[in-house]
Amino acid sequence: MSIGENRSIRVVQYGLGPIGQGAAKLILKKAQSGQLELVGAIDIDPEKANKTLGSLVDASSDVIISSDAEAVLAKTQPDVVVHTTSSFMPQVEQQLLQCIRSGAAIVSSTEELPYPFDRYPVITKTLDSAAKENGVAILGTGVNPGYAMDVLALVATGVCTRVRSVTVQRRVDAGLRREPLQKKVGAGITVDAFQKRQAKGGFGHIGLVESLRLVMHGLGWPIERFTEELEPVISERKIETPYLTVQSGRVAGIKHTAQAFMNHKAVVSLDLRMYVGADQPEDRVIVDGDPPINLVVEDGIFGDTATVAALVNAIPQVLSASPGLRTVADLPVPRCFLPEV
Amino acid sequence: MSIGENRSIRVVQYGLGPIGQGAAKLILKKAQSGQLELVGAIDIDPEKANKTLGSLVDASSDVIISSDAEAVLAKTQPDVVVHTTSSFMPQVEQQLLQCIRSGAAIVSSTEELPYPFDRYPVITKTLDSAAKENGVAILGTGVNPGYAMDVLALVATGVCTRVRSVTVQRRVDAGLRREPLQKKVGAGITVDAFQKRQAKGGFGHIGLVESLRLVMHGLGWPIERFTEELEPVISERKIETPYLTVQSGRVAGIKHTAQAFMNHKAVVSLDLRMYVGADQPEDRVIVDGDPPINLVVEDGIFGDTATVAALVNAIPQVLSASPGLRTVADLPVPRCFLPEV
Repeated sequence: MSIGENRSIRVVQYGLGPIGQGAAKLILKKAQSGQLELVGAIDIDPEKANKTLGSLVDASSDVIISSDAEAVLAKTQPDVVVHTTSSFMPQVEQQLLQCIRSGAAIVSSTEELPYPFDRYPVITKTLDSAAKENGVAILGTGVNPGYAMDVLALVATGVCTRVRSVTVQRRVDAGLRREPLQKKVGAGITVDAFQKRQAKGGFGHIGLVESLRLVMHGLGWPIERFTEELEPVISERKIETPYLTVQSGRVAGIKHTAQAFMNHKAVVSLDLRMYVGADQPEDRVIVDGDPPINLVVEDGIFGDTATVAALVNAIPQVLSASPGLRTVADLPVPRCFLPEV
Repeated sequence: MSIGENRSIRVVQYGLGPIGQGAAKLILKKAQSGQLELVGAIDIDPEKANKTLGSLVDASSDVIISSDAEAVLAKTQPDVVVHTTSSFMPQVEQQLLQCIRSGAAIVSSTEELPYPFDRYPVITKTLDSAAKENGVAILGTGVNPGYAMDVLALVATGVCTRVRSVTVQRRVDAGLRREPLQKKVGAGITVDAFQKRQAKGGFGHIGLVESLRLVMHGLGWPIERFTEELEPVISERKIETPYLTVQSGRVAGIKHTAQAFMNHKAVVSLDLRMYVGADQPEDRVIVDGDPPINLVVEDGIFGDTATVAALVNAIPQVLSASPGLRTVADLPVPRCFLPEV
């Protein structure tokens, strides 16, 4: 197949929340190269259905948003679906299967998809088999999981003769991010409310354990056991963001950590802090190895833009990947796709 | 094929200079995992031939070093050859062909091999065809070219929606490196001697243009034209290394730069400074893009260890790559192979 050479890549955008809208807008921009085109848009929200995509994302596109995924897929026959609907595997399984059965490859922002093999063995097997049967690759990616705390960690070890441990520290100033993310980290709520929400589960950053598993898998290390901990970061001053106010003593955001153990030693440690008012945002990978590696993205990677970029940049990669459920550790080194938009 | 699962990977080390000895030593260490074994060693130096590899690299190995490559390859039937003999394509073409025809994949430190397509179209075609005929992949890699100024640059753009330009700055303290590298950068010689040596060619860092081409290729940017410049870094004080002395006013090392242009604009700029007494070694990638990325390896990547690591870490990657002449941009994200030696 010579998609992208002889003809353009046909893309359907599935899910039009903030990330999906960003992806659609970026795909429309990159479509100016003639190397890809946005042929369909799906969202279950009745408020969005039947509008043009152009009107929703402030760009030029006559594509009509539809809530009927099956009809869009059948009619547009996409090469690839950019899927941005939910964080959790059980909620996306049927959506992904529908895309796969239409013969489309998938790049998805579902945070549990980058490494679902251990947590969801049955769903994984179903998706992997369906993808192989239909000759397409599917991939979960984004900035985190998918890059900052897993791909960068693996890349940092690529010039080491040995590795004793890997530590990844991500510091995000949630005050600079979109509103859903500020709410997701609990900015502004009381510690009591934080703990109640935490007890209900599904709170905090989704995908940290997926990054942990990706790094362990990439290094060929079996996970003996792992720990995961979520705690609030308390604000010591009043902070105002464009969307909310955090009073002093209230929750500014989260400190979310995970560690994987081998031979009773923590060998991979992930430490994510996302809070309003973070002092020095940065992404840091520390490899205790030979040579030691201290890899830093100064000022951090700006998440909203980066997630959209990671998804769209993965389009050519899933199209040339071997069929099945792939991970970012299987694919070629990431790079910007069609950099001049 | 399930090399590494059902049976160990058979490796031949071809070339036993400092990097080759380092690679052999590392392979012998990693062989303790049972996942690979060093089955043969080749060097043309009669001083080394007929000794055991163990005696040369201070490790446990009864492998007899031989100058007869053909005999070693035929007898040992390696899965992969780690090749570390020369920087230049014309000098390695026959050696690589011999390995390929024996059915072995190759990881080579030849600095012109990471992206030889434009500079050596004929040799490239010959090697690529032979590799495909024999069902093996061949790869040129190392820390530089192969990682610091190309793979890291591409990885840094992986979360960008657009890229206007990429700048890579590598600062190496040559005083901490092995003697041949100190001599290679001209440490201690006069400016006059530097210029004479420069006029003769083949001086300075080999592989900078290969990194430049790799980055442009990875980003899908055609090279309109490129520039390359080599100049001496002059020492402002007397510096002593374990191997030599640099008087004040003499050459401390090199500043080697290359730029690729598109639409009359420098879009990829590489700036390598390797000199004795370098103040703040570091590897830095600056992406002028959305979002902007400033990726730094603090204190730099220690080159001698890292090159050996990059070669050995690429072994499983070439074994699972599709046949032909591959580049580091085609292969999965690098990571440490068998990290616990």
